[in-house]
Amino acid sequence: MRENFSYYMPVRICCEAGISKKIAQYIDGENVVMICDPFLYNNGVAKSIGDSMEGKNVVYFHDVEPNPSCESVDAAAAVAREVHADCVIGLGGGSSMDVAKIVSCLTTNEGSIYDYYSGGTRTLQKRQTTLMCIPTTAGTGSEVTNVGVFTNRNTHVKMPMVNQQFWPDYAVIDAELTYTLPPAITASTGMDAFCHAIEAYWNKESVPLCDALSMGALKMILENIKTAYDEPENKEARSRMIIAALIAGVSFSQTRTTGIHAVSFPLTAEFGASHGTACSVTLPAFIRISQEQEAQKMLTLAKYLGYDSVDALADGVEALMRSMNMPVRLHEIGVKAEDLEHITEVGLTAAIIQLTPAVMNKETVYQLLKSIL
Amino acid sequence: MRENFSYYMPVRICCEAGISKKIAQYIDGENVVMICDPFLYNNGVAKSIGDSMEGKNVVYFHDVEPNPSCESVDAAAAVAREVHADCVIGLGGGSSMDVAKIVSCLTTNEGSIYDYYSGGTRTLQKRQTTLMCIPTTAGTGSEVTNVGVFTNRNTHVKMPMVNQQFWPDYAVIDAELTYTLPPAITASTGMDAFCHAIEAYWNKESVPLCDALSMGALKMILENIKTAYDEPENKEARSRMIIAALIAGVSFSQTRTTGIHAVSFPLTAEFGASHGTACSVTLPAFIRISQEQEAQKMLTLAKYLGYDSVDALADGVEALMRSMNMPVRLHEIGVKAEDLEHITEVGLTAAIIQLTPAVMNKETVYQLLKSIL
Repeated sequence: MRENFSYYMPVRICCEAGISKKIAQYIDGENVVMICDPFLYNNGVAKSIGDSMEGKNVVYFHDVEPNPSCESVDAAAAVAREVHADCVIGLGGGSSMDVAKIVSCLTTNEGSIYDYYSGGTRTLQKRQTTLMCIPTTAGTGSEVTNVGVFTNRNTHVKMPMVNQQFWPDYAVIDAELTYTLPPAITASTGMDAFCHAIEAYWNKESVPLCDALSMGALKMILENIKTAYDEPENKEARSRMIIAALIAGVSFSQTRTTGIHAVSFPLTAEFGASHGTACSVTLPAFIRISQEQEAQKMLTLAKYLGYDSVDALADGVEALMRSMNMPVRLHEIGVKAEDLEHITEVGLTAAIIQLTPAVMNKETVYQLLKSIL
Repeated sequence: MRENFSYYMPVRICCEAGISKKIAQYIDGENVVMICDPFLYNNGVAKSIGDSMEGKNVVYFHDVEPNPSCESVDAAAAVAREVHADCVIGLGGGSSMDVAKIVSCLTTNEGSIYDYYSGGTRTLQKRQTTLMCIPTTAGTGSEVTNVGVFTNRNTHVKMPMVNQQFWPDYAVIDAELTYTLPPAITASTGMDAFCHAIEAYWNKESVPLCDALSMGALKMILENIKTAYDEPENKEARSRMIIAALIAGVSFSQTRTTGIHAVSFPLTAEFGASHGTACSVTLPAFIRISQEQEAQKMLTLAKYLGYDSVDALADGVEALMRSMNMPVRLHEIGVKAEDLEHITEVGLTAAIIQLTPAVMNKETVYQLLKSIL
């Protein structure tokens, strides 16, 4: 157990089925900008939440794309400034919540996201606008982190931005929003949450509070994900999955992630795998290799989760993924043997890969990927 | 598992052996008031921390008594106002940290604690002064709660005060400060932390994040308290105990406590038992009765802690307490059969007793106490 650590997670979490229709109570001021993707706007979900806010002037920015661009951020910020937003709400998966984080700051900070991000030289001043995040999947955990990930459309570089102003004021956790998630998304986002929890647990910068949170989240995911996949309207399973994803989010908000996420970046960018799929496809292999430097800690976890060994846990996770029709080999997402060297190189450029409890270099990462080709 | 909950714990936690000598970095401004008890002042501990703060003007208020009075609070507030404190530090057990919480507010809020507490009609305005808490025992958890407990010297009434302004800015966790704790205090404060964690876990207002935290804290306490008791300078055991107490504090900061703490109030006030002793003496009995409404959840916990049943956990905790020479029967702290009715009545006046997962009334509480007379 790491005995030197810091911990700070100042988000107010409100969890209740149906609570997204009762959020006006948390918002001072009249002007609300709700940020979402076209899907959540067109299917009426965003509007039904907006309509529940009596007396508020709700304006929608519904053009958030997957892997949101800096251009989208600036467009949304223009809307927020125009209406003098008192509150910015991010509704959706990680993309919309991430955009809301920076837009809530840009409402009262001049200029473009480029002035503050990746080469920008300005510093975000204290946010004046309430920031609320409402996840619609049980996965990303973005509602309880201070990270946003944005893509520069010119360079195609996707980079995280970490900022103390990005902690949401409120994380509103409403399992009802996940009742209609299709099984494939339930599986991939749920396994993304699994990765968050386990990468926080075995992290070289692990935090004792997060070790405990991760164990709880991992158990809840193993006990509920298949039910949520098989029975989309099973309220108990949905509730437990969104709570588990929340807890996993709190956990990795303190530690960051590790090799799984590092390697997922090229798998998403170049092979089009969804984030959850790109992460979980290497999960069993990373579980095995985590024993290199955290054998005892990982055995404790495996036993807590009902397995006799860490390898048995890896086998169990792989079987679970297969049972949900998820890819468990790289070739299933289009990777060929000749791609492995490049994926290795790109993965190694992400600093977080060195938080994995195993030697991570060209040889070891290549061999890990080859073992699951 | 409770699926409707809220969670908010905005304290910055900094944990490292020796970190209490590096705290100047967290403090803006020059003027610091350090609040402690005479023991920590006279043995030089408070001064050694103050002396580490180069460039700061550190003034000491070292008259905090056990069960601190409102009069002490007002005296300390006068000091803080006189030096225009930029930061108030509470160093010690719960008493000093609790005093620091309200004093940091009174620095810029006029009047006496009586204006704001128990019958007072004024509302504390936003705190302008940095509040830092540094525990010197592994027990109270006050460093991560927004509660202070104060005693009215005129009425002898001891009452908690809960306030959003009481969340410390910083909890500074330095295991080195506990290396010299005598075994009896290691035992009683450590078992107080055990009560915090388990009362959060079985609480009728339990929170899933706190369930996970409590499980982790309880395991760490069971694995380390006897070593810390037997070998006061065992650094690993000391470090794990202060981290476990911290985690238990986070846990009950969200849920409050239950019957154990309710019944402890008369045991401390009228029989002179220390807080930790007054709590833990009823702990095994409350573990048994928790099965009334939380049989499955408690069995999950018992198994996680290495016991086959909840009763076996209760037996194990009782044996652990005996091994540390702690009282496990009420007569050992001076309670007689004819006192039980009165203790029952006083315990039942504390609203938190109804957060116990069992029917709590005159008959059931009396029988519980009688069973451990």
